[in-house]
Amino acid sequence: MSVDHRRTTANVRVLDARGEPLRDTDVTVEQRRHAFAFGNIGFDLIPLANAETTEDAASRAAFGGASLEGLTSLSEHWLELFNTATLPFYWRGFEPTEGVPDTERLLTTAHWFADRGVTVKGHPLTWHTLAPEWLLGRPDAEVEKLQRGRIRREVSNFSGVIDTWDAINEVVIMPVFTAEENAITRLARRIGRIPMIRLAFTEAREANPAATLILNDFDLSSAYECLIEGVLEAGIQVDAIGLQTHMHQGYWGEEKMLAMVDRFARYGLPLHLTETTLLSGDLMPPEIVDLNDYQIPSWPSTPDGEARQADEIERHYRSLVGHPAVQAINYWGITDDGAWLGAPGGLIRSDGTPKPSFDALKSLIKGEWWLPRSRLRTDAEGRVAVSGFFGDYAIDAHGSTASVTLAAGTTDLEVRVS
Amino acid sequence: MSVDHRRTTANVRVLDARGEPLRDTDVTVEQRRHAFAFGNIGFDLIPLANAETTEDAASRAAFGGASLEGLTSLSEHWLELFNTATLPFYWRGFEPTEGVPDTERLLTTAHWFADRGVTVKGHPLTWHTLAPEWLLGRPDAEVEKLQRGRIRREVSNFSGVIDTWDAINEVVIMPVFTAEENAITRLARRIGRIPMIRLAFTEAREANPAATLILNDFDLSSAYECLIEGVLEAGIQVDAIGLQTHMHQGYWGEEKMLAMVDRFARYGLPLHLTETTLLSGDLMPPEIVDLNDYQIPSWPSTPDGEARQADEIERHYRSLVGHPAVQAINYWGITDDGAWLGAPGGLIRSDGTPKPSFDALKSLIKGEWWLPRSRLRTDAEGRVAVSGFFGDYAIDAHGSTASVTLAAGTTDLEVRVS
Repeated sequence: MSVDHRRTTANVRVLDARGEPLRDTDVTVEQRRHAFAFGNIGFDLIPLANAETTEDAASRAAFGGASLEGLTSLSEHWLELFNTATLPFYWRGFEPTEGVPDTERLLTTAHWFADRGVTVKGHPLTWHTLAPEWLLGRPDAEVEKLQRGRIRREVSNFSGVIDTWDAINEVVIMPVFTAEENAITRLARRIGRIPMIRLAFTEAREANPAATLILNDFDLSSAYECLIEGVLEAGIQVDAIGLQTHMHQGYWGEEKMLAMVDRFARYGLPLHLTETTLLSGDLMPPEIVDLNDYQIPSWPSTPDGEARQADEIERHYRSLVGHPAVQAINYWGITDDGAWLGAPGGLIRSDGTPKPSFDALKSLIKGEWWLPRSRLRTDAEGRVAVSGFFGDYAIDAHGSTASVTLAAGTTDLEVRVS
Repeated sequence: MSVDHRRTTANVRVLDARGEPLRDTDVTVEQRRHAFAFGNIGFDLIPLANAETTEDAASRAAFGGASLEGLTSLSEHWLELFNTATLPFYWRGFEPTEGVPDTERLLTTAHWFADRGVTVKGHPLTWHTLAPEWLLGRPDAEVEKLQRGRIRREVSNFSGVIDTWDAINEVVIMPVFTAEENAITRLARRIGRIPMIRLAFTEAREANPAATLILNDFDLSSAYECLIEGVLEAGIQVDAIGLQTHMHQGYWGEEKMLAMVDRFARYGLPLHLTETTLLSGDLMPPEIVDLNDYQIPSWPSTPDGEARQADEIERHYRSLVGHPAVQAINYWGITDDGAWLGAPGGLIRSDGTPKPSFDALKSLIKGEWWLPRSRLRTDAEGRVAVSGFFGDYAIDAHGSTASVTLAAGTTDLEVRVS
């Protein structure tokens, strides 16, 4: 699919500090950022952002806990490719003891990313899995109150640095989830799926009216369509539809993936591919239904697997970036070290070296789809044609810099360097 | 499961024509009808009800078209067991030429059943499969108008004799159905599932406010739960949830069946097992997804299969009648002759003889769960204790008859024979 719908050419009139056009002048133009969200989880970098020096810190996470010694290098690779970080707000880990949330540590991490130009997203505010064990004995009314309070607290505390949230996760299975007893499933079964969603979106919206709130699921069958249609009929404002695509059992291929995307695109909402995994090793057997059920002692990345992953990641990103409804692709893991399920789904090997998939993705995001620092010359009116992907660009002239943003429909801009 | 929640004992005070208690008197009590809907399709009996004498009539139906010579005997078997008939209103067959619906023939059939004490149900008012081919070329707005009109027409014309309808069928798959291009799928995809359901229920409700309107589906996964929750949130009044259970690939067993029923019982609505099939021959291979895709030249009923079917039908009915939310079980075919898919799912063999399943079901419906004609004696106050399944009973005394109805909570009745 073409990605031309994500590009534009703008005539930028460059003015000097006094407002006079810089005629027939050499300027340099350089892309700074993609508008499209190329994301990954930032879980591994929490200890780095917090300058933690004991492995204990990394081991707090269920996954996404790479060992500390490689984190600086890992962070450089991370920032080389991605502009959007998903941070973990799994309630059980975030508030292991009631009333003692991990707010400061996550705030520091969120600011660390934001300071580096990265958009930060919180995942998830409401979920049955990894609900706190201390919630189990409470009556439904109290569970609901605590769930509402926890949403308000996190969304308020992080407002301004995290303005994108998975408001609720995996609602299709939520009330009929049986793998582990938990208070959220019980509540969802009692009050119903749509009231659960309304609860999550209402609390988050009130706490941060500017937030982008996402409904996220791994069930991409008609069940999710039915749920979405019910939610929209009920008048709940969903800002984006989240689609998980953990492909531990193999890449689906462009055709199947785009047919799925088309089904959800018909609701007219932006689509976020929230959790994307492609393996560089053996695939998980197809008969596994809940991916969490597959635990093996060692799951290595292999040369054949790495070649396959590189090919598939390129095809996957090309096809999804080519679909007009897709606004974000969040990959699920930068490194194999400490990866979810121990699976070799990272773009960086456990030894810290990049896999071919890293280079393949970089050749798109920072190559084919990126405008590198380029020298251009303004015309007699001070105009220069800037052509590239939607995003932010810097224009340097006479040692000064200005920023412009290319967006859909952008044709003429004026900018003053100073 | 116990079926005691469907039984009661009522003290019936029997009065004579002048209102005096019939003290110490012999009376006979006999059950006439079950309150529980024990149903079957009545498709095969349309030619009989209409006194049609050419095979052409039977062959009009896609299925449920038994040959004419055995219909009288078949009808006797039918009426021996069942109190609820589903009649076919598949739009393609009902109105093969636009503006020429098969109303008279179906009305005659509906009255034929009603005259014999049978509740008649129409199936279905809205469905993508078997939508008329003449609908295909029309624009969506016209399709919607024609669909609305067809619902109003059928529900109005049959009001009083058919007051139970599958208002809409198989909505989970409706907008993503791909087996055959049709105008209803296109419309459903355009406007959404819930607006389709609202359309069907609104038109039917307005045409017959007293009707029992059913949402029916074969997809019993979480998708149907999500759909139902959306429909209820949207304020659409659904009178019963219809659950199809065509078990051509084998009986599910009580545990799985009741777990499914429990999932749908949580919405607090009556459940209708609308389409029930159990085979008395080879099972369909498990890899078949759409049952319609399995076409074989001959699918015989076998002695082993008949023994299995008889066992399963008894277990199936016992467990479902034992579930308090279930209000109806409609079996899908009285005879193998002309059966859907040619499958041996009937209770009567193609040669007209009853299978063991017929006897097994009869021993429940008209045996264990039935009060046969019984002689009882009133006490000194004219009272007699009538104990049985919810339903209608006749009390005869002195050559006169009166009717009483046992229902949930019925404890004391007074009846005058005259």
